[in-house]
Amino acid sequence: MQPFVFHNPTRIIFGEGTVPQIGGEARPYGKKILLVYGRASIKRSGLYDRVMASLHEAGLDVIELPGVQPNPVLSHLRKGIALAKEAQVDAVLAVGGGSAIDTAKGIAAGAATDRDVWPFYCRTATVEAALPVLAILTLAATGSEMNGRQVVTNEETQEKFGFLSPLLHPRVSILDPTLTYTVPVNYTAYAAVDAISHLLEGYFTHGDLWTPIQDRYAEGLVKTIMETAERVLADRSDYQGRATMMWAATLAFNGLGIAGVGDVEFPNHMLEHPLSALYDVPHGAGLSVVIPAWMAFMARRNPGRIAHFADAVLGIRSGDDAAKAEQAAGRLRAWFEKIGSPVSFAQAGIPAADLERIVDKTVALSKVWKVTRYSRDDIREMYRLCL
Amino acid sequence: MQPFVFHNPTRIIFGEGTVPQIGGEARPYGKKILLVYGRASIKRSGLYDRVMASLHEAGLDVIELPGVQPNPVLSHLRKGIALAKEAQVDAVLAVGGGSAIDTAKGIAAGAATDRDVWPFYCRTATVEAALPVLAILTLAATGSEMNGRQVVTNEETQEKFGFLSPLLHPRVSILDPTLTYTVPVNYTAYAAVDAISHLLEGYFTHGDLWTPIQDRYAEGLVKTIMETAERVLADRSDYQGRATMMWAATLAFNGLGIAGVGDVEFPNHMLEHPLSALYDVPHGAGLSVVIPAWMAFMARRNPGRIAHFADAVLGIRSGDDAAKAEQAAGRLRAWFEKIGSPVSFAQAGIPAADLERIVDKTVALSKVWKVTRYSRDDIREMYRLCL
Repeated sequence: MQPFVFHNPTRIIFGEGTVPQIGGEARPYGKKILLVYGRASIKRSGLYDRVMASLHEAGLDVIELPGVQPNPVLSHLRKGIALAKEAQVDAVLAVGGGSAIDTAKGIAAGAATDRDVWPFYCRTATVEAALPVLAILTLAATGSEMNGRQVVTNEETQEKFGFLSPLLHPRVSILDPTLTYTVPVNYTAYAAVDAISHLLEGYFTHGDLWTPIQDRYAEGLVKTIMETAERVLADRSDYQGRATMMWAATLAFNGLGIAGVGDVEFPNHMLEHPLSALYDVPHGAGLSVVIPAWMAFMARRNPGRIAHFADAVLGIRSGDDAAKAEQAAGRLRAWFEKIGSPVSFAQAGIPAADLERIVDKTVALSKVWKVTRYSRDDIREMYRLCL
Repeated sequence: MQPFVFHNPTRIIFGEGTVPQIGGEARPYGKKILLVYGRASIKRSGLYDRVMASLHEAGLDVIELPGVQPNPVLSHLRKGIALAKEAQVDAVLAVGGGSAIDTAKGIAAGAATDRDVWPFYCRTATVEAALPVLAILTLAATGSEMNGRQVVTNEETQEKFGFLSPLLHPRVSILDPTLTYTVPVNYTAYAAVDAISHLLEGYFTHGDLWTPIQDRYAEGLVKTIMETAERVLADRSDYQGRATMMWAATLAFNGLGIAGVGDVEFPNHMLEHPLSALYDVPHGAGLSVVIPAWMAFMARRNPGRIAHFADAVLGIRSGDDAAKAEQAAGRLRAWFEKIGSPVSFAQAGIPAADLERIVDKTVALSKVWKVTRYSRDDIREMYRLCL
């Protein structure tokens, strides 16, 4: 293990029927709340009414920012910051999935400074203060409900960037699995891919350390997410399945899986972000395209960790490390396809003719993220495996 | 899964050479610190000097309470409370293992009330305020460094009781694995047993829920602790072994393994506490006596979960559930004996003639803990399996 600091102070309230607790939980953070959400679905389902009733009962004033998109955009985030400053809100409450929570975090950071937020995402400035963030989760995927991470797409520059700040952990996140019953089949699959990807990034890239705690943590959660995805795709209202998926996705990216494994690179996210930014592909759908390609590429270069995964998670025991890793890439690709997540540019609607343009974006991102392991040719080669 | 609230705000600073950070970490909590520790060992090792230098450099005044015993006692805890009140300390810093940290927590609770602390342990009163607690860990075992739990022995009544309060999570715990190099072989073994026991309690008693996340979490940690115990017993200064043991013991009892499994009973702790209270047996040594007995007893009554453990952790695949569970009890008993932890009353120096006296104590404790599953005859039968 490597040295680490682990601090995750988010309070998780988990279970059916927990939404009405939001008023009481939010009240200690102030009088005026900015409510951030996406489209009309939370109004149709009645969730919006339940949240508003609880907030009003707790005596809170509510300002609203609807309109968060699945890949949230910087212009909308800036609109939220202006609103938060003008109304002088005390806290920001997201009701939604990772997009709503990430937007709430960006607003919380932006409302506490006179400067623009984009440099935080470019990692040329650091968040020094933030409003408290709270969340009610409606999609089990990104883990944003229990970490200090957020991403946003800058539409002008077509860059999807993200950063991490310990000040942006939600103070409280309410996780009611029944809120995910209405998540469509395709987004349920993309969400499973996203959660798995968060576990794989740390697992595959940490090198040759002896890390049995972190390995088994990730292996157990990946197995669980794979089993559970099939369960909820068969029955979208399976409470135990939805509950397990929701908590597994949270634990997949709450910092525990990577505590002690040293600096983690995110090559699959690096390959995916340009796809979301350029073509508005759902994040999980982009990940299911690039993950098997990255694995197949690495099977030739440095298969050790992928072979370990092949054995521990997929039960692949035959062949040398390179062969095991190659099989693991194929097996995971087939499983992504089985659950209905795309595994090629064509399936994701990404034009093969744009390859060089995508490579340009990724090379630029690799510099922002300081990932030096992959050359331009490597990156092109990995995308070729997605065609 | 069952509904749950998970909130673990302890900040963990992990790695070699982290002790000098204590001054800076403690300063935000006030000017005057009560330093709680055990015997001369931290002076011999130089740890005491390093801690004092860091606290003084941060401008803090330090009051000292040495003399914590391995099974900490109420009279000493009350002495600490009187000292904390008289000196009007702002925070309590434990340097030691679970005994020092538990004592620091008891003092932190007692110093913030005009009432006596014993009712907290009897669960007839609830902690409503507490001083901040900080910890520097020197023994990987109890998990007290990252939870709100504590135990103490009342010498007058010979009762070892404990309780849980969200106000008593350490604010910061410093975990430097090199501080455990000097832990003797026998205490290293007892510590491994203790950490395993914390995982088994939740795993075995939660009933028939579908809990793959929590099951795999516990299974992975138990396997890791078993492998790692053998590694550090072979080489007490194996950094990676000590680091893995330290973090695994923390994760074994930080609330994550039992979040979502419903109300957990602690039958093995219920059977062990009277042994520590009456005979001053080290807690882990008492646990290695009672765990195989409890498992063998339950193998006849309700073997399902133990059979699941037998398969997943010990690789036992033959026989029906009762046979698997019986084998698991024997296998774990043999492993405890192998690492040098006692597995019978005789080995632990407990007189068999005292059986009824021990049963009396345990029946009384089962009432305090509201554990109704075991009759007096059941309890006697389980202790008979320890003879």
